[in-house]
Amino acid sequence: MAEKKAVVLLSGGIDSSTALAVAKAEGYELYALTFRYHQRHAVEIESAKAVAKYLGVKEHLILDLPLHLIGGSALVDRSISVPKGRSLDEISSDIPITYVPARNTIFLSFALAWAEVLGTGDIFIGANILDYSGYPDCRPEYIEAFERMANLGTKVGVEGKIKFQIHTPLIKLTKAEIIRKGLELGMDYRLTTSCYDPDEKGRACGRCDSCLLRKKGFAEAGVDDPTEYKN
Amino acid sequence: MAEKKAVVLLSGGIDSSTALAVAKAEGYELYALTFRYHQRHAVEIESAKAVAKYLGVKEHLILDLPLHLIGGSALVDRSISVPKGRSLDEISSDIPITYVPARNTIFLSFALAWAEVLGTGDIFIGANILDYSGYPDCRPEYIEAFERMANLGTKVGVEGKIKFQIHTPLIKLTKAEIIRKGLELGMDYRLTTSCYDPDEKGRACGRCDSCLLRKKGFAEAGVDDPTEYKN
Repeated sequence: MAEKKAVVLLSGGIDSSTALAVAKAEGYELYALTFRYHQRHAVEIESAKAVAKYLGVKEHLILDLPLHLIGGSALVDRSISVPKGRSLDEISSDIPITYVPARNTIFLSFALAWAEVLGTGDIFIGANILDYSGYPDCRPEYIEAFERMANLGTKVGVEGKIKFQIHTPLIKLTKAEIIRKGLELGMDYRLTTSCYDPDEKGRACGRCDSCLLRKKGFAEAGVDDPTEYKN
Repeated sequence: MAEKKAVVLLSGGIDSSTALAVAKAEGYELYALTFRYHQRHAVEIESAKAVAKYLGVKEHLILDLPLHLIGGSALVDRSISVPKGRSLDEISSDIPITYVPARNTIFLSFALAWAEVLGTGDIFIGANILDYSGYPDCRPEYIEAFERMANLGTKVGVEGKIKFQIHTPLIKLTKAEIIRKGLELGMDYRLTTSCYDPDEKGRACGRCDSCLLRKKGFAEAGVDDPTEYKN
């Protein structure tokens, strides 16, 4: 019997790397999908490559997307500053300027196209809502709406040959729970990166929302954080 | 009062060019969005530029997308032949190999991102179902599902600041009706191109599904087809 395939969105951060480890543990043949979208933290692509190799993916596709031409986010527009040193209350109270318009919709659309070509309906995304409630495109109701649209808008979906399912194994876990789950599955988090605003050497700033949530996650999981922070 | 803005997907063919003319007639300030996706018929991008200029768009954004790396369609994979000389019954009986997996989902996702940045909820697409029932991502139920997803997965959608609406002014028109509507609105179809498989000089083959539907549309509209076909 042919192995079942999964397309897994992989940024190189904790969540997507753990989602990849979960898909592997569930017996999927792994097709990792990463985007070079002119993100400020393009160093994450090197992490994605390392994680993909570590977890033995069948194929790792890295696609270039010109999201800087659309803009609207501190992550793709260098003229907008990444917020630093915010409290956890502040982080969870709004949708931050690091939100990239329609990013998960764009990323999932490519995952959908690739899944259709590969002949599989299984797509994994490391979206999670608990630690980071700010991003609208990480919520279950959005994911379900995408899934519905995917089954209506594809050849194999309409023909009933494949039922697309967006797997979100981390959606209700805290960062600490995600880290514990990954460690159980043998994930090596030294390979991952989270910082939105690394220096030219790729070192994490230690003060952006993503660094702060990473630190908090390791602390709450009772695990040493392997990251070398600048601050 | 600020003019209302619309993002309009523009391929350079009859349908999208007419959709742009409709948006203009409805009083929108036009933001045309075109993709260079390694399509066999990249000559259509020149048509899109000419149409955008002719209709006086405020901005024309052309984005490069690596869809050839995903493949799965005769339009982006040169090793798959474009069907030629099919009957109209054959054309309308199946989803053809010129279907590009999840293409409208990908295109609409970028339109959504740009609309969010521009601060508008109005997106136009020239999708239509009557002449070309083969593409699943041209059907009203798909468009509605995308719209729903868009409002759940964006910052401005969730905050209730903008309600995204995917306008499909041509969805139930025949090609002949589309052409008549465009002519009423002053569209110059000499600027448009339809062929999936033009020669190196950009001349239309005259025998692919898209050429055949174009010919039929002009014939039924009782209008001279301005296209120079090779066959």
